[in-house]
Amino acid sequence: MTPADAYAALLDHARRVSALEQTEGLLAWDQETMMPPRGAAQRAEQMGALAAVLHAMRTDPRQEDWLATAEGLDDPAPDVRADLREIRRELTRAARLPDGLAEALARERSASHQLWAEARSTRDFAPFAPALARVLALRREEAQAVAEPGQTAYDALLDRYEPGARAAELEPVFARLREGLTELLDRIRGSSARIPKISGAFPETAQMALAHELAGDCGYDFAAGRLDRAVHPFSSGSGLDVRITTRVDPADPTECIFATMHETGHALYEQGIARELHGRPAGGHASMGVHESQSRFWENHVGRSAAFAPFLRDRMKIAFGSLGVRSPEALFAAVNAVTPGYIRTAADEAQYDLHILMRFDLERALLSGDLPVEDLEVAWADRFEADFGRRPPHASLGCLQDVHWSEGLIGYFPTYTLGNLNAAALAEALRRDLPDLDATLGRGDLEAPLDWLRDRIHRHGRVSTAEDLMTGACGGPVDEKPLLAHLEAKFGAIYDL
Amino acid sequence: MTPADAYAALLDHARRVSALEQTEGLLAWDQETMMPPRGAAQRAEQMGALAAVLHAMRTDPRQEDWLATAEGLDDPAPDVRADLREIRRELTRAARLPDGLAEALARERSASHQLWAEARSTRDFAPFAPALARVLALRREEAQAVAEPGQTAYDALLDRYEPGARAAELEPVFARLREGLTELLDRIRGSSARIPKISGAFPETAQMALAHELAGDCGYDFAAGRLDRAVHPFSSGSGLDVRITTRVDPADPTECIFATMHETGHALYEQGIARELHGRPAGGHASMGVHESQSRFWENHVGRSAAFAPFLRDRMKIAFGSLGVRSPEALFAAVNAVTPGYIRTAADEAQYDLHILMRFDLERALLSGDLPVEDLEVAWADRFEADFGRRPPHASLGCLQDVHWSEGLIGYFPTYTLGNLNAAALAEALRRDLPDLDATLGRGDLEAPLDWLRDRIHRHGRVSTAEDLMTGACGGPVDEKPLLAHLEAKFGAIYDL
Repeated sequence: MTPADAYAALLDHARRVSALEQTEGLLAWDQETMMPPRGAAQRAEQMGALAAVLHAMRTDPRQEDWLATAEGLDDPAPDVRADLREIRRELTRAARLPDGLAEALARERSASHQLWAEARSTRDFAPFAPALARVLALRREEAQAVAEPGQTAYDALLDRYEPGARAAELEPVFARLREGLTELLDRIRGSSARIPKISGAFPETAQMALAHELAGDCGYDFAAGRLDRAVHPFSSGSGLDVRITTRVDPADPTECIFATMHETGHALYEQGIARELHGRPAGGHASMGVHESQSRFWENHVGRSAAFAPFLRDRMKIAFGSLGVRSPEALFAAVNAVTPGYIRTAADEAQYDLHILMRFDLERALLSGDLPVEDLEVAWADRFEADFGRRPPHASLGCLQDVHWSEGLIGYFPTYTLGNLNAAALAEALRRDLPDLDATLGRGDLEAPLDWLRDRIHRHGRVSTAEDLMTGACGGPVDEKPLLAHLEAKFGAIYDL
Repeated sequence: MTPADAYAALLDHARRVSALEQTEGLLAWDQETMMPPRGAAQRAEQMGALAAVLHAMRTDPRQEDWLATAEGLDDPAPDVRADLREIRRELTRAARLPDGLAEALARERSASHQLWAEARSTRDFAPFAPALARVLALRREEAQAVAEPGQTAYDALLDRYEPGARAAELEPVFARLREGLTELLDRIRGSSARIPKISGAFPETAQMALAHELAGDCGYDFAAGRLDRAVHPFSSGSGLDVRITTRVDPADPTECIFATMHETGHALYEQGIARELHGRPAGGHASMGVHESQSRFWENHVGRSAAFAPFLRDRMKIAFGSLGVRSPEALFAAVNAVTPGYIRTAADEAQYDLHILMRFDLERALLSGDLPVEDLEVAWADRFEADFGRRPPHASLGCLQDVHWSEGLIGYFPTYTLGNLNAAALAEALRRDLPDLDATLGRGDLEAPLDWLRDRIHRHGRVSTAEDLMTGACGGPVDEKPLLAHLEAKFGAIYDL
């Protein structure tokens, strides 16, 4: 077999895996949007059967031979090199995983998830703690098994979501970010500015119609996707079938608007990946931190910006009539109001990353064993008090609020903050290239920023590493400065700081 | 391995296959209802990848050993016997198929389908004929390979849809049916009765709301299914996720109403199969002729009946306001009007089976080679003229109208008429058991007939053969008499025959 034949065989296999992963994605999408309630047990069996097939295909031993031969390709193009790099990465990881660990994790995650949901509803952390400890022990075992030489256990997990990232390199950036955020939050708390509130009638059909309009305004291609409702908004799919969901709160239209723009951001990334990369290992996203940068860009740097407010206010007035906010400036302030709260997913831009940074620290301590699971509830409350100035009244507003740890998802949280850091850095670079950006945003003309992102980020898939991609787009490594400058400008204007 | 262990292994394998078949079904449902247009190419890859997985699982050689051992079970229960019978049936068939034939058929079907669609749009049979001949040759080869000793090639194909059926046994029943139908049609054509027409405004949302109501009236469980729009209505799914679709013609609400009741009939069958049979070989449907009897029962023996007309008219008046038909009798006549036409799917009950009977004769002649493919267009027109009294003006209203043959579907058509025969026989038996059926139908109270069908047909899945099931439910073998009596009563009343 020639290297070219071996590469073709690898790619054919990868495309089949990708097609079945897309199928898995469709089962999940359908479950959250269309599936009748009594279909749940069958759906679990469908998911299980497909997962078993995918596991067998991903561990197909022929791949190792193909890959070894294909790695002899003479001077492969960057996209081919990326295919080989990603396949090597997956095979190495799979080969290091102890037998039976994946099954044990799947079992414990499922049990732990169940106990977490019960614990959250009863606001009682204790019954969940032993299950969390078991999941953590398995993840620790996984991390130690798959770690590269010199890689910490935490980094081995983080690498799954943010290839190449190291906690030690994130730490100083995150520390400076935390310092800047707590300082900003202090000033906001001391401000006497009065923030307007949106009020009016927001029928569900009008909200969904507006959501469709806004997604279209951002450049979302409805011929290659669709928009539906879901309890927890998400985007899914890839290539030319990328679907988004949003939620509707009849009392508050901003939920629907910003969830839509957030998921549209994710979807625009997927829709923008170059056609020739579809279904290939090189055709994935560069990292979760890059993916999240796209959702945060459209949600926060477009949707919640002062520049976009005139256009958004016009759209909202057409959809709902009276809004109770008298000017674009008032709308801008209303959608960026900073309010006390305990829940990460409901947090404003000034507080959101403080939530993440505490999770980053706590989950590293949990994984290393420095923080025993039974001490988590108190450790959480202590840290929350240090950063936010108050303690959660119970565990469901504290360490039980997120689903992630219950499923053993360790190393995922920092990608949210990386998303915010990347989004701010991209917005800053974009503004340098398009000096009249604010004027175009005010008209709802979003083609220029989309074109810029398509060119700098989307089309490349994961041909480059996340770091190279971001450095190339922004003209240098990403740090905390653009995000802090963005927040300073936004909240300075709103709170007269 | 004990016989019990072998049976458990077989069943576990069958459940996985079933779960992946359900997944295949969801991909198909989504394609017709939800998928964005640009997603088509990806969907084809997903379908292809899943088909390859299913093919490998269905031909997994371990099954033969498990089955041989499991067949040593001591006095298995009827449902277990049915599981073993169905698995034996599939394995025998698969073992007899020549290598490569399935792939060749898949290729030729796809090419032939494409050419058929082009031919139909240009009304020109000639360019399609060679592709049809190639598909027929492959089907002939398949039929000869899989036929049981003494089974004709046609019967070997028919058996796929109607297990145990033989064309030679259908022939005399179909011949008497054809005689009765042509005679009835003659009298209808000679009648001077004037048939009322429905007129009014039928907004799409009102039609879909009515469709939901009617499906619910029939007993369809929306917690285990859903109703959406599709260009060509169909039902799909099994167990506790059985979905139906309907179409909406803004000018004619009866399209939507009867498509809905038809698909609801199919779905009620699936929803009614006993829980313990779900996902098992014994949990399928008895035959396509039994499946179709359920759709025809609800569409024609309930929906288009004189007894149901008062209830249906009330529902329609609430949905649409004025209908232009002044009485339940007028509605009954309007929804059963016999009009000249060339298209099977648009045919009324008086003419529908004449369409099928000619296809049954023509496809047997095509398969045997007695009718050369190039003579099909003329043979079709001749036969149509003999039965309907006029010739199709072009091939798209003649032999190009149906998709079936283009995909090599031979032996499927007769199951439509078996469905009508079975439905009439079931309705007759039901009326014997429930003498006040008409009064309850008039109130829209459909629980009693559903309970009766659940008990006699649905819950049994394919534990019994179709023949045993029908004989048991109807108290004797099914022939043409109940259908002819039903049509005589219906059209006699409407056309004053």
